[in-house]
Amino acid sequence: MLMHNLISQLKEPNQTKIVLLVADGLGGLPIEPGGKTELETAHTPNLDRLALEGTTGLSTPVAPGITPGSGPGHLGLFGYDPLENDIGRGVLEALGIGVEVGPNDVAIRGNFCTINAEGAVSDRRAGRIPTEACARLVEKLRQNISIDGVETLIEAVREYRLVVRFRGEGLGENVSDTDPLSTGLLTLDPKPADFASERTANVAAEFLRQAKVILHDEHPANFLMLRGFAKFPAIETMESAYGLKPVAIAVYPMYRGLAKLVGMTVVDPGKTLADQMAVAQAQWANFDFFFLHYKYTDSTGEDGAFAQKVEMIEALDAEIPQLMALKPDVLIVTGDHSTPSRMKSHSFHPVPTLLWAPATSRPDLVTTFGERPCLLGGLGHFLAKDLMPLALAHAGRLQKFGA
Amino acid sequence: MLMHNLISQLKEPNQTKIVLLVADGLGGLPIEPGGKTELETAHTPNLDRLALEGTTGLSTPVAPGITPGSGPGHLGLFGYDPLENDIGRGVLEALGIGVEVGPNDVAIRGNFCTINAEGAVSDRRAGRIPTEACARLVEKLRQNISIDGVETLIEAVREYRLVVRFRGEGLGENVSDTDPLSTGLLTLDPKPADFASERTANVAAEFLRQAKVILHDEHPANFLMLRGFAKFPAIETMESAYGLKPVAIAVYPMYRGLAKLVGMTVVDPGKTLADQMAVAQAQWANFDFFFLHYKYTDSTGEDGAFAQKVEMIEALDAEIPQLMALKPDVLIVTGDHSTPSRMKSHSFHPVPTLLWAPATSRPDLVTTFGERPCLLGGLGHFLAKDLMPLALAHAGRLQKFGA
Repeated sequence: MLMHNLISQLKEPNQTKIVLLVADGLGGLPIEPGGKTELETAHTPNLDRLALEGTTGLSTPVAPGITPGSGPGHLGLFGYDPLENDIGRGVLEALGIGVEVGPNDVAIRGNFCTINAEGAVSDRRAGRIPTEACARLVEKLRQNISIDGVETLIEAVREYRLVVRFRGEGLGENVSDTDPLSTGLLTLDPKPADFASERTANVAAEFLRQAKVILHDEHPANFLMLRGFAKFPAIETMESAYGLKPVAIAVYPMYRGLAKLVGMTVVDPGKTLADQMAVAQAQWANFDFFFLHYKYTDSTGEDGAFAQKVEMIEALDAEIPQLMALKPDVLIVTGDHSTPSRMKSHSFHPVPTLLWAPATSRPDLVTTFGERPCLLGGLGHFLAKDLMPLALAHAGRLQKFGA
Repeated sequence: MLMHNLISQLKEPNQTKIVLLVADGLGGLPIEPGGKTELETAHTPNLDRLALEGTTGLSTPVAPGITPGSGPGHLGLFGYDPLENDIGRGVLEALGIGVEVGPNDVAIRGNFCTINAEGAVSDRRAGRIPTEACARLVEKLRQNISIDGVETLIEAVREYRLVVRFRGEGLGENVSDTDPLSTGLLTLDPKPADFASERTANVAAEFLRQAKVILHDEHPANFLMLRGFAKFPAIETMESAYGLKPVAIAVYPMYRGLAKLVGMTVVDPGKTLADQMAVAQAQWANFDFFFLHYKYTDSTGEDGAFAQKVEMIEALDAEIPQLMALKPDVLIVTGDHSTPSRMKSHSFHPVPTLLWAPATSRPDLVTTFGERPCLLGGLGHFLAKDLMPLALAHAGRLQKFGA
């Protein structure tokens, strides 16, 4: 936290505006050995101009070789060390479907399962019931579960998966999973690992006791298991850490949730990237840090759709002039990680990144935006968490350190 | 240890195979200003092909400006922070001559010296007696020294240097050196720095008392001094840390000893690099991490023999096809440090490194292997300890971090 504390001490008010445009999973790989990546293939005149005028480099999201999920990937870009700010699985799952998680909440991942007459698990995923069946069972639980002194929220996620949130005083998060991890075994009791989590374990046990009765005659989903008990992590807000008034313009719930974690205001983003740009314009006077999240560079990569990822990059490029028209003082375009369509998954590869700041950018050797060109960039190879201090510096928002 | 713990948590089984080929002291310097280094001078078509297809960069073994010995240099390459995993001098000296050091052992460097009638040191190196004289004196000590409850092993190293190993229960390592560091002074008594090392100090004092009697009539080596008391460090094995089954194919004892420190199986490597390649092939099914050590890039550098170092690099290049025929998933070629023949010593310069992984390598701007080309490499400038996580990632042996 040394750097984060230092930045916080050096922060200085200014009227400047910073835009962080995250193209999720931006980095890629060539399909053929020696070929071009998705970004290198795409026709991106606007991004190329920013790369030419600004400074570029390659961002390592967490550490060399580490493939990040969306949580650590974004925390790094927001300037928080992802290794020191762990977000529990239950909280991420809740954020991912738009469930709020506040300081008095414990969020938990649940999954329906099948148990036999002796209570042993015969199917840990209840035959992967369809999402509609999950929604019906969740509604049945909602109607019937009642625990004294605790507000219980239950939401379906997808297929056999759900989220449970307990809200109340004195609920710690250190409670063990109830999934025995193998079929043929009894489900486990939720056990507290510290005194502060005893009440949570008791609440969870009562929840499961009632759920077993309510689901008794269902098939195949006649019980459920809980895992990933997690509280909202105590993270300093961006306003406190950086003196910024930040807003998130993100379509998908997960990224809105991550933005809330660091204290961003979340506004209605509309549906398309053009909508998001219009929202940025409409909100321009109200905030000084704008986080825009663009999902489709990641989802096409996850699908292994090289050509579609290229198209999504070109669609992003086409909206850049709308951002430039707002005359930001600092504009960053990067990704939270790479998602090479060749790998159909998140990867550990560094992410091409550009930082454009007309008043202070030092030009480098880069004239187009891409993985290979960024090797010659003035930002070099850097850790994602170092990007936010650079943005603040270029925005004239950091005092000198020492005399 | 944060990163090492994280890697250990994320490790995932796979059938992939990783080869780490260490060309000791690989990095160099030009003889003439602006000239080529040894590696840049060498004709290396096979390494060049790997550099073209893979990703390259420059490895800093420990930290900028730090010239590493073989111990820290290799620990870094094995993924252990050399600043956090100190190997005592006595242990390194023992490993260097093939003396085993186990958990109940204390290893100590010794050197013969000359003392006068009053017991003051008149020559701290006993006139640099020849190795044969050293061996005779060591044999004499072996025949006559006996200490209750402790197994004593004594081995000649070279000239006036020897290794002493005490094996027994309750032997701590925090015992002071007995060398007064100046002539004209009495040798020092071995003093314990903690309770756990009292027995070691007593054993050492008794060893020295007997040695003084045994060596009394010798000249010039009529006594010896002990320094660098050290125990085998408690290092997590590579199997525990990474889930790998590692094997070392190294000709020199020092590197076999270092490999044992991190839990590698050590096999008979034969005598030549071609032998080592044949052993790798023979053992291919039995392991999934292969450490091959090649000494002659270092020894020619230490000799200041530029042309010979070039030849040794070319000899290494010629064996690369044998490795490629095994179809490794990840092949790394690097050094544990630089040994510029111009300096005739280890140096602090970064080490040219290539990581070739056909499934996941991202091409960079590098088409030949050398110090200057690697400046355009996709690995950038990195710490040696970050190479192992990258190797595991490219081998599909690390799960995603966070959701």
